Amino acid sequence: KFLWTVLVTILGYASSLPVGNDVLCTAEELAKYRIIFIGKWSQTAFPKQYPLYRPPAQWSSLLGVTHSSDYSMWKKNEYASNGVRDFAEKGEAWALMKEIEEAGEKIQSVHGIFSAPAISSGTGQTSTELEVHPRHPLVSFVVRIVPSPDWFVGIDSLNLCEGDSWMDEVSVDLFPYDAGTDSGFTFSSPNFATIPQDTVTEITCSSPSHPANSFYYPKLKILPAIAQVTMVKLKKSQLGLSAPFINLPAKNNEIIDTVS
Amino acid sequence: KFLWTVLVTILGYASSLPVGNDVLCTAEELAKYRIIFIGKWSQTAFPKQYPLYRPPAQWSSLLGVTHSSDYSMWKKNEYASNGVRDFAEKGEAWALMKEIEEAGEKIQSVHGIFSAPAISSGTGQTSTELEVHPRHPLVSFVVRIVPSPDWFVGIDSLNLCEGDSWMDEVSVDLFPYDAGTDSGFTFSSPNFATIPQDTVTEITCSSPSHPANSFYYPKLKILPAIAQVTMVKLKKSQLGLSAPFINLPAKNNEIIDTVS
Repeated sequence: KFLWTVLVTILGYASSLPVGNDVLCTAEELAKYRIIFIGKWSQTAFPKQYPLYRPPAQWSSLLGVTHSSDYSMWKKNEYASNGVRDFAEKGEAWALMKEIEEAGEKIQSVHGIFSAPAISSGTGQTSTELEVHPRHPLVSFVVRIVPSPDWFVGIDSLNLCEGDSWMDEVSVDLFPYDAGTDSGFTFSSPNFATIPQDTVTEITCSSPSHPANSFYYPKLKILPAIAQVTMVKLKKSQLGLSAPFINLPAKNNEIIDTVS
Repeated sequence: KFLWTVLVTILGYASSLPVGNDVLCTAEELAKYRIIFIGKWSQTAFPKQYPLYRPPAQWSSLLGVTHSSDYSMWKKNEYASNGVRDFAEKGEAWALMKEIEEAGEKIQSVHGIFSAPAISSGTGQTSTELEVHPRHPLVSFVVRIVPSPDWFVGIDSLNLCEGDSWMDEVSVDLFPYDAGTDSGFTFSSPNFATIPQDTVTEITCSSPSHPANSFYYPKLKILPAIAQVTMVKLKKSQLGLSAPFINLPAKNNEIIDTVS
């Protein structure tokens, strides 16, 4: 139960939000959030070419970062970094972790890194904690769609600060992106490098406009959300000993529906 | 360079160590460690049935916990919990995270949970941070061997406290375990539930004693380590802003060799 919950449900990808570039965060202290990622990639919602085996539909580990506007993990219509390419194509996190580390060391643009375990089916959940700082109030993360050529979902620079306070709860629907590095058209396409590399693009029910594409549903106006992420601020009383274990929802609950 | 490094290299599985059951930790304050997991599952070291595709040899997310002796994540020769079974069989972390949460809430036996991203090949690395507390100085974690029936590597209740101080660095070689819940004999065996469930057992080059077993190498005395984990205490100066990004080694470096 959240007495003072501000529930901000944002439909669409987060990169369309007003992000922190010119926003001053005057909130005091650090804030901790529980982040819960819910896969909604079911065969019912996405019947076309739904991967049933070798491997079945699933989600990679979640890799995220809290940062200032001087750092960008990924951005729509810009080129993916080598780290994001490795992660989107193979779920390999190391290069991306190194990039984040370097941004933290060189330009102090990074506050913390976080990761959550992979999900072994299309519709499960995973969760972890993150910490933001008034100088580093932005959250970005990526989760690879498995199997896929280089497709992922994620958040780009979502600002958890609202002037002089921290948002209590944010929930965002997630839609698939193409990292622009592999030209495969379907979930289980063989590797086929895109040369020259293309930019990161959103995949919609009509784009790429080709019937072979796994997300091509010409009768739909928009795709259903393939995943959802919710960030809930932890109260001070939830911090400290045993803090990371509070409020994990029961499996497959719709987090968003439990908020009073 | 670590001026005062105590390098404790422990060969063999950690459950043979003297753990915290009767050990009083009188160290002051919390301690933070970087934990680095290195996969050493190469085709050269483990040529038999080495999985090359669908999926190729790789490692799941790492899921770990810092705790007191009142909690046990898994233990050799005991039955795996439902959460460990789900994780070892499918890499599904949710049930195990719920078990840890409940142990934290009910008996205050848990300090924190941590996870690190999956590794997309047999020989890569992954890393994260963890925090221990004088009342919760033990570290346990699991990483699933992918593909496999229910095989994993991990640490059971490694005590990072040495009397009144925290160890500076610990490195442990890891060997495969069978969770006792799936009777598959080889990396890519189809699912075949073990009923009744068996206990967690170490897999060696001679046990299970059957030529079809993927780790059966009758000419070897012991298997090479299939993975290695290193925990390095972070200095106070490395804590705080940007702390999580310090000392990530270059890819495929042997961490253990860089310690002076």
